[in-house]
Amino acid sequence: MATIPVMEIFGPTVQGEGMVIGQKTMFVRTAGCDYRCSWCDSAFTWDGSGKDLITPLTAEQIWERLQEVGGTRFSHVTLSGGNPALLGSLGELTRLLAGKGIRMAVETQGSRWQDWLLEIDEVTVSPKPPSSGMHTDWGKLDELISRLSQRTDGKSVSLKIVIFDEKDLAYAIHAHARYPHIPLYLQTGNPDVHTGETDSHALSLIRRYEWLIDQVMDKDELNDVRVLPQLHTLVWGNKRGV
Amino acid sequence: MATIPVMEIFGPTVQGEGMVIGQKTMFVRTAGCDYRCSWCDSAFTWDGSGKDLITPLTAEQIWERLQEVGGTRFSHVTLSGGNPALLGSLGELTRLLAGKGIRMAVETQGSRWQDWLLEIDEVTVSPKPPSSGMHTDWGKLDELISRLSQRTDGKSVSLKIVIFDEKDLAYAIHAHARYPHIPLYLQTGNPDVHTGETDSHALSLIRRYEWLIDQVMDKDELNDVRVLPQLHTLVWGNKRGV
Repeated sequence: MATIPVMEIFGPTVQGEGMVIGQKTMFVRTAGCDYRCSWCDSAFTWDGSGKDLITPLTAEQIWERLQEVGGTRFSHVTLSGGNPALLGSLGELTRLLAGKGIRMAVETQGSRWQDWLLEIDEVTVSPKPPSSGMHTDWGKLDELISRLSQRTDGKSVSLKIVIFDEKDLAYAIHAHARYPHIPLYLQTGNPDVHTGETDSHALSLIRRYEWLIDQVMDKDELNDVRVLPQLHTLVWGNKRGV
Repeated sequence: MATIPVMEIFGPTVQGEGMVIGQKTMFVRTAGCDYRCSWCDSAFTWDGSGKDLITPLTAEQIWERLQEVGGTRFSHVTLSGGNPALLGSLGELTRLLAGKGIRMAVETQGSRWQDWLLEIDEVTVSPKPPSSGMHTDWGKLDELISRLSQRTDGKSVSLKIVIFDEKDLAYAIHAHARYPHIPLYLQTGNPDVHTGETDSHALSLIRRYEWLIDQVMDKDELNDVRVLPQLHTLVWGNKRGV
């Protein structure tokens, strides 16, 4: 049976961002990413610094570990990374979890397709804006979003774009015009993913959130959007595993 | 033509709470409430202190005012109060806004039915827990939730319960067991709706949010729920009209 490179399993905690913000969920964080975003808050999944954490686990072993950690206190699991969509082997896990009646969410930048994405209740596609230093393959994104938005079984897809500056906002306006019927979430960027200071960091992130609100409220190209901070950074700063 | 007692029209701003948290929206706040919650953050809508603000407006006049204030920078309107469901005359406004292609949300405690509720895209029903000092008529709530959840046209309904203490949590557990298929949002209470201090208030609300997260994560009766703060109080404290 194929294994999945797992870096962390933790929870239950709240999903801090995006379309299921606030949802009580367990997290399964996989290793590896095809991107190298300048401001990545989980660079340990791809820069080598977390390589000792990587544990190859089968779907059954992940389910056992979820129960060890979360007991009976969860009904929702979030697959995060890295980019979980690098891993075809996650299909075994999504089938197993669906069979247990677990609702699932995933976040991916939309650069790779996997058939198991069709089984995910809430797919957050988070293309990366200019501040990331990454390049978006719009053709690939078109196809992925088209396939996910054709689902008619109550499963949903959204776009989430992190905004650090006005170039990122212009990118978001382009994406919104390209996919007008896909719910769009704009998210405050976190410029310091290393500080251990919680309170002053939270207050500075709130000021960044206010800046983003002001920008979006002013633009009639961005009317049907949601603007959100990352709740977990407000509560726990950059602490891992919460 | 019937008029609607309006206290405030403002925006666009973000919806700070509940099922459409973060949504860019205009607010129309109506006067009057059948409740007197101990911790109400909009008591000026019912305690007489805001009576000079009340302006009787027709639906057409409200639409004009929305455009004066929001220009072309909105496609979503939130009806808030007080309890907007006291007002049958809002039906003229909801028809007018629906005709303009405006999406609408409303928040009501669920104590009164209005047929226009059926036209609202996102209905937040917020029954009030023990800390409010109010009493819930569960029979009435059953009927209202049943009527709203039978809609099949993509329109949605959720429950939102403010949590100050463990008695409120027990109330939320009861409500969740009673309406297991209605999405449930639990929200941090704001114990000081008058302070002008923003930063220290935000930090204390974040600690309250952390307490609520801890409580909910620990309870397997509250697995499929969302736990959220009020974003507007984090950004603007108790300031009105933002």
